[in-house]
Amino acid sequence: MGRALDFYFDFSSPYGYFAAARIDELAARHDRTVNWRPILLGAVFKTTGQRPLTAIPLKGPYAKRDLHRSARLYGIPFAVPSKFPIAATGACRAFYFLSDSDPARARKLAFELYKAYFTADRDITSADVIVDIATSLGVDKEGLTAALNDPALKERLRSEVDTAIGRGVFGSPYIIVDGEPFWGADRLDHIDRWLTTAGW
Amino acid sequence: MGRALDFYFDFSSPYGYFAAARIDELAARHDRTVNWRPILLGAVFKTTGQRPLTAIPLKGPYAKRDLHRSARLYGIPFAVPSKFPIAATGACRAFYFLSDSDPARARKLAFELYKAYFTADRDITSADVIVDIATSLGVDKEGLTAALNDPALKERLRSEVDTAIGRGVFGSPYIIVDGEPFWGADRLDHIDRWLTTAGW
Repeated sequence: MGRALDFYFDFSSPYGYFAAARIDELAARHDRTVNWRPILLGAVFKTTGQRPLTAIPLKGPYAKRDLHRSARLYGIPFAVPSKFPIAATGACRAFYFLSDSDPARARKLAFELYKAYFTADRDITSADVIVDIATSLGVDKEGLTAALNDPALKERLRSEVDTAIGRGVFGSPYIIVDGEPFWGADRLDHIDRWLTTAGW
Repeated sequence: MGRALDFYFDFSSPYGYFAAARIDELAARHDRTVNWRPILLGAVFKTTGQRPLTAIPLKGPYAKRDLHRSARLYGIPFAVPSKFPIAATGACRAFYFLSDSDPARARKLAFELYKAYFTADRDITSADVIVDIATSLGVDKEGLTAALNDPALKERLRSEVDTAIGRGVFGSPYIIVDGEPFWGADRLDHIDRWLTTAGW
């Protein structure tokens, strides 16, 4: 088993969702695992001076088109949520509440949150929605509810975002493979080849 | 023979160069031709408020890495020019000087200009360099030299850029296939499939 891939993503990022739907299977084919790492692009954009994709003239309308087209191409259910983009702070905190003790369940929770947001138009900024989804996966309700406002968990998320920026992460998805960074759902094919050929 | 693909690009765009190296062959496989359309992204960015890729913190360093990696993947010779990015006004004008009367030679000139800039580090903002490359392709030296400062040609370029913005072009390469827009050298695979399946 080779080193884990570091998979940085924002819960508000549709391309992050597309990558989330495919990355574990891709990694497994190469006998690799994936280290899921949700972050907040809002904090990253303060460093880079960027704006959300959909806020950019001309690029925004194109992006919506490319999103639907990409979803159909990959066969992934997708709808633009009515509230978009969002700052998915609570979703990130719920992930890190679980990730150390139960990374498999944390990963499952992350994908369920993505699906709830991008296929069922559920508002994953709501603590009630997060707790509802998490408890359906067997997560302790009271523990999670308390954790969502735990200063230690807030600090943990801040530190994960800082680490990401320190590693050069500027968008979502951003995947680091043995030190080599790849940005964008459309780079999964490159990653596949990179892992096949040990670089090129 | 189906409708031509509209291929918008900036001479300063490495991803435009990568697309230029592959698009004619791709189109020919689908019995299509390509309508090459150089534009100036600087003018486009005034509309969209974007900045050149390499000027964006974190994204710039990543882009350089992705460029070299993509060039190796596609097998295209590539080096970052010492003067980069540039406003390739003269190169565009030289193209439009030829494009109506001799589109095949205009297309050939465009690719030679790209190669000179991205493989031989020649300064294609220099009228001398442009004329040198064009005359090696049999273009009339005096006619071109005069044309580079012809107000009608300046206006033609301005109008091409305006048309591009009106059609939603915000980056390079930007390719319109039967009304469907595709942005980025990494969308050539999507275009290939789009042409194979008549959309999806």
